[in-house]
Amino acid sequence: MTARRLLFGGDYNPEQWDEDTWREDIRLMQEARVTTVTLGVFAWGFLEVDDDVWEWDWFDHVIGMLSHAGIGIALATPTAAPPTWLHRRHPEIIPVDRQGVRFHQGGRLGWCASHPVWHGYSTRVARRLGERYGRHPAVEMWHVGNEFGGGNRHCYCEESSTAFRAWLRARYGTIDALNRAWGTAVWGLRYRDFDDVIAPLASESGQSPSLLLAFDRFSSDALLAQYRRERGTLRDAGVRTPITTNLMLTVGGSVADYVDWVPELDVVAIDHYTQAADPHRERELAFVASRARGLDRSKPWLLMEHAPSAVNWQSRNRPKEPGEMTRHSIQHIAHGSDGALFFQWRASPSGVEQYHSGLVPHAGTRTRQWGEVVALGGILERISETAGSLVTPSAVAVVADIPAKWAWEEGQKPLNGYPLERAGRRWHEALAARGLVPDVVSPTADLSGYRLLVVPGMYAVDDDAADRIAGAAAAGATIVVGHLSGIVDAENRVRTGGYPGAFRTLLGVFGEELHPLLDGERMALASGAVAADWAERLRAVDADVIDTYRGGPLDGLPAVTRRRVGAGSAWYISADLDAGLGDLVDAVVADAGVRADVPVVPGVEAVRRERDGATWLFLVNHGGTDATVDATGVELVHGQEVRTSLTVAAGGVAVIRETAAAAR
Amino acid sequence: MTARRLLFGGDYNPEQWDEDTWREDIRLMQEARVTTVTLGVFAWGFLEVDDDVWEWDWFDHVIGMLSHAGIGIALATPTAAPPTWLHRRHPEIIPVDRQGVRFHQGGRLGWCASHPVWHGYSTRVARRLGERYGRHPAVEMWHVGNEFGGGNRHCYCEESSTAFRAWLRARYGTIDALNRAWGTAVWGLRYRDFDDVIAPLASESGQSPSLLLAFDRFSSDALLAQYRRERGTLRDAGVRTPITTNLMLTVGGSVADYVDWVPELDVVAIDHYTQAADPHRERELAFVASRARGLDRSKPWLLMEHAPSAVNWQSRNRPKEPGEMTRHSIQHIAHGSDGALFFQWRASPSGVEQYHSGLVPHAGTRTRQWGEVVALGGILERISETAGSLVTPSAVAVVADIPAKWAWEEGQKPLNGYPLERAGRRWHEALAARGLVPDVVSPTADLSGYRLLVVPGMYAVDDDAADRIAGAAAAGATIVVGHLSGIVDAENRVRTGGYPGAFRTLLGVFGEELHPLLDGERMALASGAVAADWAERLRAVDADVIDTYRGGPLDGLPAVTRRRVGAGSAWYISADLDAGLGDLVDAVVADAGVRADVPVVPGVEAVRRERDGATWLFLVNHGGTDATVDATGVELVHGQEVRTSLTVAAGGVAVIRETAAAAR
Amino acid sequence: MTARRLLFGGDYNPEQWDEDTWREDIRLMQEARVTTVTLGVFAWGFLEVDDDVWEWDWFDHVIGMLSHAGIGIALATPTAAPPTWLHRRHPEIIPVDRQGVRFHQGGRLGWCASHPVWHGYSTRVARRLGERYGRHPAVEMWHVGNEFGGGNRHCYCEESSTAFRAWLRARYGTIDALNRAWGTAVWGLRYRDFDDVIAPLASESGQSPSLLLAFDRFSSDALLAQYRRERGTLRDAGVRTPITTNLMLTVGGSVADYVDWVPELDVVAIDHYTQAADPHRERELAFVASRARGLDRSKPWLLMEHAPSAVNWQSRNRPKEPGEMTRHSIQHIAHGSDGALFFQWRASPSGVEQYHSGLVPHAGTRTRQWGEVVALGGILERISETAGSLVTPSAVAVVADIPAKWAWEEGQKPLNGYPLERAGRRWHEALAARGLVPDVVSPTADLSGYRLLVVPGMYAVDDDAADRIAGAAAAGATIVVGHLSGIVDAENRVRTGGYPGAFRTLLGVFGEELHPLLDGERMALASGAVAADWAERLRAVDADVIDTYRGGPLDGLPAVTRRRVGAGSAWYISADLDAGLGDLVDAVVADAGVRADVPVVPGVEAVRRERDGATWLFLVNHGGTDATVDATGVELVHGQEVRTSLTVAAGGVAVIRETAAAAR
Repeated sequence: MTARRLLFGGDYNPEQWDEDTWREDIRLMQEARVTTVTLGVFAWGFLEVDDDVWEWDWFDHVIGMLSHAGIGIALATPTAAPPTWLHRRHPEIIPVDRQGVRFHQGGRLGWCASHPVWHGYSTRVARRLGERYGRHPAVEMWHVGNEFGGGNRHCYCEESSTAFRAWLRARYGTIDALNRAWGTAVWGLRYRDFDDVIAPLASESGQSPSLLLAFDRFSSDALLAQYRRERGTLRDAGVRTPITTNLMLTVGGSVADYVDWVPELDVVAIDHYTQAADPHRERELAFVASRARGLDRSKPWLLMEHAPSAVNWQSRNRPKEPGEMTRHSIQHIAHGSDGALFFQWRASPSGVEQYHSGLVPHAGTRTRQWGEVVALGGILERISETAGSLVTPSAVAVVADIPAKWAWEEGQKPLNGYPLERAGRRWHEALAARGLVPDVVSPTADLSGYRLLVVPGMYAVDDDAADRIAGAAAAGATIVVGHLSGIVDAENRVRTGGYPGAFRTLLGVFGEELHPLLDGERMALASGAVAADWAERLRAVDADVIDTYRGGPLDGLPAVTRRRVGAGSAWYISADLDAGLGDLVDAVVADAGVRADVPVVPGVEAVRRERDGATWLFLVNHGGTDATVDATGVELVHGQEVRTSLTVAAGGVAVIRETAAAAR
Repeated sequence: MTARRLLFGGDYNPEQWDEDTWREDIRLMQEARVTTVTLGVFAWGFLEVDDDVWEWDWFDHVIGMLSHAGIGIALATPTAAPPTWLHRRHPEIIPVDRQGVRFHQGGRLGWCASHPVWHGYSTRVARRLGERYGRHPAVEMWHVGNEFGGGNRHCYCEESSTAFRAWLRARYGTIDALNRAWGTAVWGLRYRDFDDVIAPLASESGQSPSLLLAFDRFSSDALLAQYRRERGTLRDAGVRTPITTNLMLTVGGSVADYVDWVPELDVVAIDHYTQAADPHRERELAFVASRARGLDRSKPWLLMEHAPSAVNWQSRNRPKEPGEMTRHSIQHIAHGSDGALFFQWRASPSGVEQYHSGLVPHAGTRTRQWGEVVALGGILERISETAGSLVTPSAVAVVADIPAKWAWEEGQKPLNGYPLERAGRRWHEALAARGLVPDVVSPTADLSGYRLLVVPGMYAVDDDAADRIAGAAAAGATIVVGHLSGIVDAENRVRTGGYPGAFRTLLGVFGEELHPLLDGERMALASGAVAADWAERLRAVDADVIDTYRGGPLDGLPAVTRRRVGAGSAWYISADLDAGLGDLVDAVVADAGVRADVPVVPGVEAVRRERDGATWLFLVNHGGTDATVDATGVELVHGQEVRTSLTVAAGGVAVIRETAAAAR
Repeated sequence: MTARRLLFGGDYNPEQWDEDTWREDIRLMQEARVTTVTLGVFAWGFLEVDDDVWEWDWFDHVIGMLSHAGIGIALATPTAAPPTWLHRRHPEIIPVDRQGVRFHQGGRLGWCASHPVWHGYSTRVARRLGERYGRHPAVEMWHVGNEFGGGNRHCYCEESSTAFRAWLRARYGTIDALNRAWGTAVWGLRYRDFDDVIAPLASESGQSPSLLLAFDRFSSDALLAQYRRERGTLRDAGVRTPITTNLMLTVGGSVADYVDWVPELDVVAIDHYTQAADPHRERELAFVASRARGLDRSKPWLLMEHAPSAVNWQSRNRPKEPGEMTRHSIQHIAHGSDGALFFQWRASPSGVEQYHSGLVPHAGTRTRQWGEVVALGGILERISETAGSLVTPSAVAVVADIPAKWAWEEGQKPLNGYPLERAGRRWHEALAARGLVPDVVSPTADLSGYRLLVVPGMYAVDDDAADRIAGAAAAGATIVVGHLSGIVDAENRVRTGGYPGAFRTLLGVFGEELHPLLDGERMALASGAVAADWAERLRAVDADVIDTYRGGPLDGLPAVTRRRVGAGSAWYISADLDAGLGDLVDAVVADAGVRADVPVVPGVEAVRRERDGATWLFLVNHGGTDATVDATGVELVHGQEVRTSLTVAAGGVAVIRETAAAAR
């Protein structure tokens, strides 16, 4: 086995500290076995200190120190935060809000992705960095900008309107096509030509859901174009190492449609932050990590940022519990990340993020936290052989799609403020509890390998995606379509003729009427399951009725159906059953004939990675009691042989290099 | 009996559909026995496709098809939604918000009622329509604009300020009179001349309640002036058929003071939408329908819009229950509407209202909903003889007033966010439960026919209205003044010298101090009734004490009083008793000596209409069980003779042409 | 004993009334024994009726009437509300909000403290008033403006940015010093020179907590500068009587840092309004009154405004209970106010404050309220000998600081929306319940006289203050530092190296990590106390552990510690124990060796004032039952001798001139 490593480290902002601290940082990085730091994310104002006035010496020096210490660098283009002088000279690059009022200096992502002046300044700084450090041996990776869209997702300035029109011309070709696609005849808002269109600045009443969705797509593309602009500049300047950026991927996150970004990323990299108030945040993490994996299943991905402990932006920023940072890091790696990087190396005393935790906390190194950091560095070193491996392919996937979420959130809906993504997370949890390791994939992914495909809350779907899902059923897969799927098309237009339009034929049902429930209202099913929030007036046209509504206005009507489709089957769950999915999950798993991928032990998350015939079983005990898992091999974290089973301590982690026969 | 009909149909927007759909629409309208469609509400951009460029052919064609099919047309001036080209050319017509920031294109009512440019464009399109279709035989009615003020109630642009000043000059004559009326000496905000006044754009602190109320009145008048401008244009262009517009009348609705609009309407027409979360929405409907009737008791009114099922603009848009559309339609007709029109004919897949239900739903005609539509068309045909009749005059009325609500909602109040209109609805419900069919009338209505007049939450009242109410008591009526009545005058100025200033003498009481209660606080009365939200420190000067407060700071003081006034009496209820009105209602009903107008059967709403000696008893069973009502005559919905009583099925409706002796 | 008096009266706005009312007012003032009215607060527009056009006659007349009636005048510069003509001529003086949008005319404090045009107009009117009335014998005091910052605390206009930059230059000297102090390297937001800085107008993301805090300090200073500008103008114009303004002091109030204002005030004057929904608003009042006293312990202060009954600006403006106005007035005087003035003399029927109560209510004088007003006037006359006395010095103080609150509220915090001031109020209550009369003082006060010093929620603290607190401990005091103290420095920068940085050495502890708790989360302590909202991962380095956390992630770690420090001791309470402070208070009181200052009788608040050897014991019975207090002397309110004890009626008040031996 060749020398491999899992990345460990995080964002490093030396511009905030003096040289003595730099030296201490290097020493502590070595103590903690840090492999990699992300450098320069917020350094623009310290490199280009005024318009085209550059100061490189200090940066050269820091890079030299890191290089000398054997610490790899992910070098950022510093476009996440324009310097104050640039905002003072060019306030016109700052985003404009929906009311048409421009923001001001003093924040972070204070730029409009469509503004030509911004394009000039941002590419110049990227080019200068690329030219200077493009071939530096310590610079192992490039990190373009930071959290694209995290503050500047939408801009409503005139340059944005101009760019939006160009984007629309490219998408629709003719204004008639646009008018048809958006149904602008409603309220008589037809456009005569593309010049009639502006960004969806606030009107005195609501606005077209199609316009709003198109603007979301455009805005995502404008951010992607900026990424590509910087990436191309770096390549032109001679950069040969991998280039990526950190996608803001969480269950509810939706600033951009990352599926389109993947082809432009040499490695998929994500940021992930848990919600302190979520009692099962580890499950949300598993969902997101599965989704990161699903973006590009051909190679490992990279956790670019997570938090050592508390963050600063939630209402109550409770710190992580002892051991939680380690469990979360190992979870991400188990799900395919080739490392665990953090925001940030050293906690800042100042600025907006002054309460965001760091690997080196405000209190310094005589702390529980630093002890856990050093221990984690050791663990990652001991399990470094897993680097480069892939999660064992799964027969099960949950489909998720960011534009479907946009479509649901833009405009007035039957049920407003409803978390479309909740059902997907619930299915992922329920399948994981049965020893499956579901991928989370977009509808454009290759679906051919899956025997069980769950399609929950796929509110907007284009014909191609609907066809591909139907094709998977015909080819033998079990498809489970959840409520609020297939309702609208890619233009946010309701598919008429019976809900859920895109899947009606596949499912063999005819939905007469969507039936959101009132706050607190419950609707019983014959099976004993209980619906909240959502139901549907449904008829089974060519499907078996598995469960029915009992009582109320839908009494006796189908709630859950199944249709045989070629070699496969297609289930429809018309109600939001949320926590009460239990029996249904067993039924569809049985129908699909899939078996557990990993051992099932309550409280223990198990994921397997493999490479060249070798397999590693990752075990994370989220529970409060020790748990014993059947396995054979060598446990790498504690370095012990495992003959038939291993006991993982409460809150602990283990990674077993399995004896060949043991795997699967 | 001459050929009569009740109108049935709704808004029809052919510009959203192709010609094949038009043909299907006509066929379906005939299947459902549709009599009337409202055409052109949002068609402006399809008629005037650019500035003074007109396309009439398609509209001629649609009108011809409808005419040929025998379907009547309510033709709209399309001013509810200016076309995009107009906003692009003249963004200055779009309303400005309180901060002084102008809205943008893309919505619905994007116009300022005071803007001269708007006046020009809106009257030109009205004139062209009037000239072209003013004498078309299928155009049976004209529908000016749509939901005036539903989005553009207030505009704070400079043209609005200019028009506001002109309005103030007309109302007050001199600036001294205005200064006195508003009490501008408070905070030293006296105006030197009218030119000092601007629209109440946001200041860094609160603003004068008198200024705010005046701006509400002005804004209502500005909308009315726009209505009159279009109506006058139509008449000038040769229109001879009735002209109206759809008033947004609900319990809490208050975009304009519709009492002033009635003289300009050839028929009172309203829109009414229930709140899905209101478990007794049928009672709110009855209140509103009684209010529509009260606006002009001399002739039937018209329900211009209600929803076939769900709407799109509430938080949770639960659909109507099976049968509910029918019950609501019959309720409105029972209360005096000569028909039941809907928004909208065919549900749109696009636009802001894509989830507003239609008579033809997204799922098409193979649906429960379409079945109920067709059945309803049949019912309306079978009860068509009731058209033109009036609700039997009632001896009981509840007084309601929109400017009183404005006065309460503008400025800082003893109890903020409190629903002033709640008490009126509660009284209406309580009286209806006793077999009465109360009118809901404005204080300017002719009050002479009422024996019992309830005046709840008439917060602002001018001297004339107060005198007329007192006069009704002197003439023998029982007057019940509720809390929060008569506190301020028409200028939103507190009437000093003891609350409730306008009614103090009539009631024989002296209110020392208003006494709002804290959230969750309750105050008991000696009778066992319980006050929440509101009480008052009261003395009985010349009145009998009916009930007193018990415990707390008002212990032993009067809560409810009665004063003998000439042949009548005047009650005062100083506390908010909300749900606990029971015994009090019985007492005032007894005091007034009024008897039930209709049979009292729990769950069944009964209303009688009459014409030329004939009477019809409408019965709507809102309950979950069948109910039997004493009656004699012929039931028209199911076509059966009624000898002594009729059983109305749970959720069902009935209309009995009564045998002469049976009525009253 | 020389003739003394306690001030009684309130804001008088004759410009709102006619001359007949003036005469009635004077008569009623005399009936109520009013000593003092504040005149002219909102009279600008009636004195300067247009730019430099003056009308003095009416004002001369009113002043003459008051003078003739022997009623003293606190004459206001009328700058609280610029006249409409000034806003029309110079809208540029109106504040601009954070988005950069200017407000409009029609409110109250519509001026930017940094605007040169405002400076010109405001000083001209002050000079004219000073010249005309500066030596008028009835004008006993001057009242500059009104509630500075109550609406115009922050202005973000360009003149404000300019003034902010000048202020920054003066504070920091060099831009490098500012960059270091604020840590602008975070997000690379370094300024090249002061011209790069603007007011913290909204950005698309958060902004530096140091910038925001600096702007709060600047804004406070800009208001103070305006106060000084007007005060200096008055002095230059010949005013020789005391000059002050009414500070908006409440527990949570924080529009300006009043500690800096005290040197400019000839007497500390405050406004105080209770929250109707606070069931223990009398305790909040005691805290605030103690704070007013703490601002300048060398002389009595003055309650310039409180409410006769209801206010108009809360959600539910419940009136005061019978007797409450009297109790509140006596409470303030007990705590050192030389009088009880009210907003306002006569309730206005108009304007924003139309529902703010007056001494003469809307209902007039045949009211319970007026009776209590007259009675209160009599009481104040009977206890007038207490004027000029001081509250007996206390050995106990609670430290409070407005900039510490700003620092906590600006920026993203571990626990957002948390009321930092709550702990201080709880300690004040708990100490008062033990017969102590704690001062509330700023950290810059002379701390040498206190044996027990409670430092709760002193989130931001500079080195000097921290040193002075440590010095008090070394000199023998017991110091109790509460959670969320000493975390950041005066620049809102976290003090690194272990929490709570400023007090770590004094306390002998090392805080590893701040540990906010989730909503609803509780954490038990070994003693049985229970923490909510806040805890801390703490180690005792050089301190005794008094209490520990039990269970959860902090199990077994110290929660409360004590360190012996020279002759004193320093306690640390790392958790929010809120209502459960009980045993801890007893322990620290015992540790400090302080004894009750006043008799302890449940429900009765007791405070002692003294002068020249005489002492007066004020007793306020907040309870619902009569209470007996041990005392000897003469009770002045009812005029009775007190031999050994006095029974104070439920809800009643008493003031005992004590027999010499009885005091202390």
